[in-house]
Amino acid sequence: MARSSDTRSKMVRTASRLFQRQGYAATGWRQVVAESETPWGSQSHHFPGGKEQLAVDALARSGAGYERLLRGAFESGDPAAAVELWAAAAAHQLESTDWAEGCPVATVALEMAHDSLPIGDACADAFAAWRRAITDGLTDAGLAPDRAERTALVILSAFEGAMLLTRSQRSTEPLQVVGAELAEWLRTVLAPTR
Amino acid sequence: MARSSDTRSKMVRTASRLFQRQGYAATGWRQVVAESETPWGSQSHHFPGGKEQLAVDALARSGAGYERLLRGAFESGDPAAAVELWAAAAAHQLESTDWAEGCPVATVALEMAHDSLPIGDACADAFAAWRRAITDGLTDAGLAPDRAERTALVILSAFEGAMLLTRSQRSTEPLQVVGAELAEWLRTVLAPTR
Repeated sequence: MARSSDTRSKMVRTASRLFQRQGYAATGWRQVVAESETPWGSQSHHFPGGKEQLAVDALARSGAGYERLLRGAFESGDPAAAVELWAAAAAHQLESTDWAEGCPVATVALEMAHDSLPIGDACADAFAAWRRAITDGLTDAGLAPDRAERTALVILSAFEGAMLLTRSQRSTEPLQVVGAELAEWLRTVLAPTR
Repeated sequence: MARSSDTRSKMVRTASRLFQRQGYAATGWRQVVAESETPWGSQSHHFPGGKEQLAVDALARSGAGYERLLRGAFESGDPAAAVELWAAAAAHQLESTDWAEGCPVATVALEMAHDSLPIGDACADAFAAWRRAITDGLTDAGLAPDRAERTALVILSAFEGAMLLTRSQRSTEPLQVVGAELAEWLRTVLAPTR
């Protein structure tokens, strides 16, 4: 029999995926319970704060998972190669899920920006963690901290937009072009520091 | 008494604003009718295709409006200045609406990418029109067509991401930084062609 903590973490994992694919409004408890194969009725025990609490936990989980991916890509010490890897991985994920799985946070962030402060904060925390991961990769490669922070913000913004456009166009072209252009730009930015 | 075409266009205008602020799922006919001050019951006459048709029309309207803004900014012949102007205008709009009015298309695009092909196509059409507007501004400033198209995609992606991050952080910093960095990059890109 599944332990209580398993039930909770299964629900959070399923919700993370559903929020990524279809957003907050379209995701209901019924689907979360069915797809996580957890017992109906246990949601109020595990999430007394309701769907909002489920979303905050799911966003924290997605945010941490994506941060690990980014840190993994940037720890190569070659930020331009990391950007190319990220673009290829994001394009593959979108294409192989029939354009369903883009950024795990952006949809909920835009939907709920005005409705829920806890959800808005959870989204902002995820974006901030990703920005720090990229910043760390750039400072490790020799960029001054202030320049690294600004450059990381441009990279994160361009990727968020490229994931949106790739999903909307149902074509990997935006991620391919943005990945290649940013990598070229990074090689220029980093050249004088080497 | 309002003419029938006025009623329809009032509904489309109101829906455009509501989709921008709160997305598709959260926007219902009741609110569209109330805020457009149009008679209840006329929606099925004007939009036999229902809320999906309203959304397609609203996205076409938002897309065309934003394209005019972009063409206006880029017709100065100075793409770097246009990017700075766009960043300042988008930051002002977000801040002055308590972070409610960002990109008029992105929220619906992410929410509905998987649910409605007509809505998905309307979003993709809007993004394509904006990309063409930026591309035209860059070719007018002397960039080769292929480079202009790729550069325009990077600019559009970075702005989409910066509008998302600005809204999420509730701070104009992302748009300010991304605007300044892209303007500097554009000045480098355009320098050899002058």
